[in-house]
Amino acid sequence: MIRIGICGYGNLGKGVEAACLQAQDMELVGIFTRRNPKDVKVKSNTPVYGMDNIESFQDKIDVMVLCGGSATDLPTQTPELTKYFNVVDSFDTHANIYTHYQNVDATAKKSGKVAIISTGWDPGLFSLNRILMEAILPNGTDYTFWGKGVSQGHSDAIRRIPGVVDARQYTIPKEEALELVRSGKNPNLSVRDKHLRDCYVVLDKAANSAQVEEAIKTMPNYFAEYDTYVHFISQEELDKHHKGIPHGGFVIRTGSTTNGVKHKLEFSLKLDSNPEFTGSVMVAYARACYRISKEKNWGCKTVFDIAPKYLSIEEYSSLLKHTL
Amino acid sequence: MIRIGICGYGNLGKGVEAACLQAQDMELVGIFTRRNPKDVKVKSNTPVYGMDNIESFQDKIDVMVLCGGSATDLPTQTPELTKYFNVVDSFDTHANIYTHYQNVDATAKKSGKVAIISTGWDPGLFSLNRILMEAILPNGTDYTFWGKGVSQGHSDAIRRIPGVVDARQYTIPKEEALELVRSGKNPNLSVRDKHLRDCYVVLDKAANSAQVEEAIKTMPNYFAEYDTYVHFISQEELDKHHKGIPHGGFVIRTGSTTNGVKHKLEFSLKLDSNPEFTGSVMVAYARACYRISKEKNWGCKTVFDIAPKYLSIEEYSSLLKHTL
Repeated sequence: MIRIGICGYGNLGKGVEAACLQAQDMELVGIFTRRNPKDVKVKSNTPVYGMDNIESFQDKIDVMVLCGGSATDLPTQTPELTKYFNVVDSFDTHANIYTHYQNVDATAKKSGKVAIISTGWDPGLFSLNRILMEAILPNGTDYTFWGKGVSQGHSDAIRRIPGVVDARQYTIPKEEALELVRSGKNPNLSVRDKHLRDCYVVLDKAANSAQVEEAIKTMPNYFAEYDTYVHFISQEELDKHHKGIPHGGFVIRTGSTTNGVKHKLEFSLKLDSNPEFTGSVMVAYARACYRISKEKNWGCKTVFDIAPKYLSIEEYSSLLKHTL
Repeated sequence: MIRIGICGYGNLGKGVEAACLQAQDMELVGIFTRRNPKDVKVKSNTPVYGMDNIESFQDKIDVMVLCGGSATDLPTQTPELTKYFNVVDSFDTHANIYTHYQNVDATAKKSGKVAIISTGWDPGLFSLNRILMEAILPNGTDYTFWGKGVSQGHSDAIRRIPGVVDARQYTIPKEEALELVRSGKNPNLSVRDKHLRDCYVVLDKAANSAQVEEAIKTMPNYFAEYDTYVHFISQEELDKHHKGIPHGGFVIRTGSTTNGVKHKLEFSLKLDSNPEFTGSVMVAYARACYRISKEKNWGCKTVFDIAPKYLSIEEYSSLLKHTL
């Protein structure tokens, strides 16, 4: 059994917990939190510990799955915990991945650990498909679309507008843009062409709906560059229909091998729960992390370094007989 | 530059040639044929050689791409040529892959070579998606659909019926089966439920169309188990509309992470030319083969062993900055 620890118990930590319970080769040893462990109720009967004493578990845990956020937690947490553990994270600030990689790699090589960073689906499975598709069809173009899915950051931005009680924002790929890409016409698409933003907003009684709608639609960086739709609904409706955290998206590449001979490759996800699915991807990469640590191949890795066989619970011979 | 040889110059060999011409890190050293080299006209200005003297090229070629057939060529050719070359093949008889793997692995380890077998798209990219999706969503089911595409074997079977001059058979996934799978209902689908067979047939003047149609539709293993449609057309129509070799397909997995929380993963291909696309996949794996040979990691590999970074022409740091 691969002994797993979970560091951070928000939505993502709960997703990792659920995925571990489905993995027949894994054992959940502990969940680590910055809160008072007594205040944290977990779904499995895994013991909960404080973060302050986490190093003392270094011989009891094979892989620590880091479920903190990319903005402030992971940039320091991943290198720090790589001193003691093999780790997997889902660091997703694309612009800073290379710096994060270098920081974690230095520690991992020094401490004799394996760290797999930026797992999940984007970065993660989508990145894997982008590199694969480009390698196979170099004379082509790829497009990534996100959604339909909830954007936490955009929902928060709406909630900060005076008069707004609650809000949920969905990013939705435009069907006509998807079809144009699939047609192989290799279109130039602006931000506005690719996605629209659909907002469900609960107002307080004194709020002016026209003003709030205007404030949303003109908000720079968040909404002004998009076709934005605003729906005012009651708190009951929002709670009933918009409490899920669905997401998904598409990676599509079209291109040609010889003159006029075209091909289309497409990978897509439709997820009822973004954190549960992301957690499942992290757990598959935790399996790879464990196996690579057994080979003493120390250092920081990404999805680009991981041979697919390391992700599977099956024996290699069985994979050749039944899956290849 | 990676020095490439092509062994076999049918449709697949031509596809590999086209893909090499698009690969900026590759140089085509020679095309090897069982025919008289003088009779073989190639599209590039690559020299053509006979097969009898192929071993003499062992220091001039980094990877030999094998473009023979799985029925009679590759079972002997791949192990034989692995004595002298790093090789890539597209062996696609699913039931015999493990035996082929063992044969090739023994030779590759003895001769200090790297062989990557069963590349292409199924086996190949589809296998990669099946293993990836299953590792991430263990509580689920995957389905593979093929087409719309030309089946050479089924087209040949029709051409052997008396009275038939020419024929082309398309395998087509049934839209209602695809939708049922995508819905996550986890259906049990028979052979007949998943695909239909669409046949375009040219008759000679004396033939009885009703008899030919009956002979096709009742042919065991090929057509009897399917909903089969037969269209009689002229040779001109067949030449005009049915001379391409398109193919494609879908790998779809649905499953759940916790009770009622469902996810769908889907990978699909739509290819104007099956051999050109398969050749492009083989060339990407030839790049991986070369790099793994530089690491002296001898033996037989499959797509399950190949970390994605080995397929890409880009530097690793650039991949982290731009693709991850």
